[in-house]
Amino acid sequence: MTENTTPASRTTGEAFLLDWAELSRYGAVAGTGGVDRQAATEPDGQQRAWFARLLESQGFTVRRDAIGNQFGLLELVPGAPYVLTGSHLDSQPTAGRFDGAYGVMASAYAAFRAAEAFRADPDSARYNIAVVNWFNEEGSRFKPSMMGSGVFTGKLDLDTALATTDTAGTTVAQALDALGERDSSGEPFDLEVASYAEIHVQQGRSMEEDGVTIGLVDATWGARKFEFVVTGEQGHSGSTLMPDRRDALLGAARLVVAARDLVDGFDPGVLHTACGEIHAYPNSPVTVASEARLLIDLRSADSAVLDRAVDMLMAEIDRVQATDGVDIEIRTSHSWDRNPYPEDGIALAREVAESLGLSSERVMTIAGHDSTNMKDRVPTVMLFVPSVNGVSHNVGEYTKDEDLLSGIDHMTGVVDRLVRGALTH
Amino acid sequence: MTENTTPASRTTGEAFLLDWAELSRYGAVAGTGGVDRQAATEPDGQQRAWFARLLESQGFTVRRDAIGNQFGLLELVPGAPYVLTGSHLDSQPTAGRFDGAYGVMASAYAAFRAAEAFRADPDSARYNIAVVNWFNEEGSRFKPSMMGSGVFTGKLDLDTALATTDTAGTTVAQALDALGERDSSGEPFDLEVASYAEIHVQQGRSMEEDGVTIGLVDATWGARKFEFVVTGEQGHSGSTLMPDRRDALLGAARLVVAARDLVDGFDPGVLHTACGEIHAYPNSPVTVASEARLLIDLRSADSAVLDRAVDMLMAEIDRVQATDGVDIEIRTSHSWDRNPYPEDGIALAREVAESLGLSSERVMTIAGHDSTNMKDRVPTVMLFVPSVNGVSHNVGEYTKDEDLLSGIDHMTGVVDRLVRGALTH
Repeated sequence: MTENTTPASRTTGEAFLLDWAELSRYGAVAGTGGVDRQAATEPDGQQRAWFARLLESQGFTVRRDAIGNQFGLLELVPGAPYVLTGSHLDSQPTAGRFDGAYGVMASAYAAFRAAEAFRADPDSARYNIAVVNWFNEEGSRFKPSMMGSGVFTGKLDLDTALATTDTAGTTVAQALDALGERDSSGEPFDLEVASYAEIHVQQGRSMEEDGVTIGLVDATWGARKFEFVVTGEQGHSGSTLMPDRRDALLGAARLVVAARDLVDGFDPGVLHTACGEIHAYPNSPVTVASEARLLIDLRSADSAVLDRAVDMLMAEIDRVQATDGVDIEIRTSHSWDRNPYPEDGIALAREVAESLGLSSERVMTIAGHDSTNMKDRVPTVMLFVPSVNGVSHNVGEYTKDEDLLSGIDHMTGVVDRLVRGALTH
Repeated sequence: MTENTTPASRTTGEAFLLDWAELSRYGAVAGTGGVDRQAATEPDGQQRAWFARLLESQGFTVRRDAIGNQFGLLELVPGAPYVLTGSHLDSQPTAGRFDGAYGVMASAYAAFRAAEAFRADPDSARYNIAVVNWFNEEGSRFKPSMMGSGVFTGKLDLDTALATTDTAGTTVAQALDALGERDSSGEPFDLEVASYAEIHVQQGRSMEEDGVTIGLVDATWGARKFEFVVTGEQGHSGSTLMPDRRDALLGAARLVVAARDLVDGFDPGVLHTACGEIHAYPNSPVTVASEARLLIDLRSADSAVLDRAVDMLMAEIDRVQATDGVDIEIRTSHSWDRNPYPEDGIALAREVAESLGLSSERVMTIAGHDSTNMKDRVPTVMLFVPSVNGVSHNVGEYTKDEDLLSGIDHMTGVVDRLVRGALTH
């Protein structure tokens, strides 16, 4: 592979901005600047095909693994492990165009630039380069989130993931097959990864407030996530005597309110809580609901806060069960404490920022990322660029062009050093 | 038309119980005794076809009108108006087999018995007889409820009703056409109705507690019904700072709780409130909802109670808007005060009960019925039989055979007197 086999070199900021505008057209929500391209939907298939062509145009070989992760591989050192960099192209329903997608494109451009440099000086490369678009990071159509990186790192069972259904009953396997976006050969996909780097727009506004360009992500907030099932009894919502009712939707609503009110028991900013999803059955105008399912998340950097908040929530559940005659069951739960990123990766990223004259600071991430899975397996760097007003999971999400380009410059430096062997000595 | 043209006469209690068991098989929910046959679904089409055959077997002519009301007509006095009797066969999702369906079948059997009597003594009939299965009384698949009787009485616009869609986007017209269950000729359906009678299982337990067989319905509770739209702003449910959130689902949950808590501000039993239906968007695990829609009903026999409760609810809405930064809009509202049934119909029903030796008492209905529409147009009788524990809109709904049969005996007496001219002199 030599440089003159790659037409229309994609290394400049201008080229990136043109490609970025083109990618943002897939699943665009008219008039908003946002996108709607949930995992393995038609717009996701379209952007994946486009992204594959982009990778191939720069001399990368495109492969999918058994869970639909999409890789662009460039061999510099035959047989050597790969420096992997990427994020996810899938989105929440009607969300911003930056979340995930910026990380994939910044990684691709960093890889293209690094490839150009190492093609000119092949002996300095210790590893090969791979770009990844992880499947289903969002977890909105298919649960859980971070599905592709979960399977890749062996934290999630492949067959379980492939059999997961969306609300229409379509499995992950069916949805990926409809797009031709998974390897169903049964052959193992062996990609030896030396190190991993990911960049994302911040989903908060501290960097913007501090006037900082590069966030050195040093930890993920802890979380306690619950799926509750509230069981009541179906009845006529007009005529059933109030003391005779066992209203599952009422019980669920009390939990939604209780989760929000937990926050006020702690110092400002210490605890975040939410219910993002609720389903009532039969959900019919004159019928008391017999069942309601809801997801409640509690997040904090402080595990003691989380434990106390969970105790308070469980006490409220006891009270609701007693008062409203409903049964409340924890269907699933998922828990993690504040989770640090490796210090050597933070130091490497700081060094790159300094060498480029970019301001940087340590930040925590409240949201999870695919790097949360990868950092438990290989040396990992996680970076942020600022987001205007910290808007996230919203069509109004926005990051300035100059920050997008600074992030690519920075990621190029990180990939360059990783390919030369940084973090893996 | 003479008696020997009607094979397998359907006038005995045994015949009714066999037919009742057969009808209860359509849309049966396995293992529960309940049914799931929402308006113009496949099970509704099956039971309609079965019911048409039953009517025809007894010499009644079956016709549908433009909104899919199903009529069985028996002409005794050429050109004369009709005594109309019936209820609805459609059900809520997974509900009891009695609600509505018992009323249709009791009316049919009363009509079959009256027909037998008047065929033997034609000169005593002043009116003809018609049985009706009203379309979409429940309003669960297509809103509003009481759609068929609403259009028939001119309270609801036909074209608006036909264009109403279910959540899958299917219109009423399409759903009825798929079953061949409406008259789309555009020809007017002129059925001159002299009087109307309906019977229903009580959706409450006062008659069972009082040991009474026939309920003489003398009024409908008043109601205030609202569809609220709560508007917030989509965001990341983990990372968005709590003070930055405008959570539509939280706002909706506060209204569900507030509606329930209104009840405690009044004497026990005076006010019923409920939210039966809620929809959140995007309803995704890590996303703050940008919109939630919910239906809240308040019901009372006392209009002053309703007005006070609505004032309290509106004050709570102001508070939620201010506290949670959401906007709450009343999308639709529907209101009625306590609504009496005509006294002469109550007196007639009492006289029939006395003549048959059946115990009776005046009762109110909290739920609405198609007779609520009909009583504003023609002399009307509304009857109840007891329901075990008052269970309603639940697969466990149950009325004893002896009460089902007593109700048919009573309705036969009512139809007989109406056909002879009672209430219309």
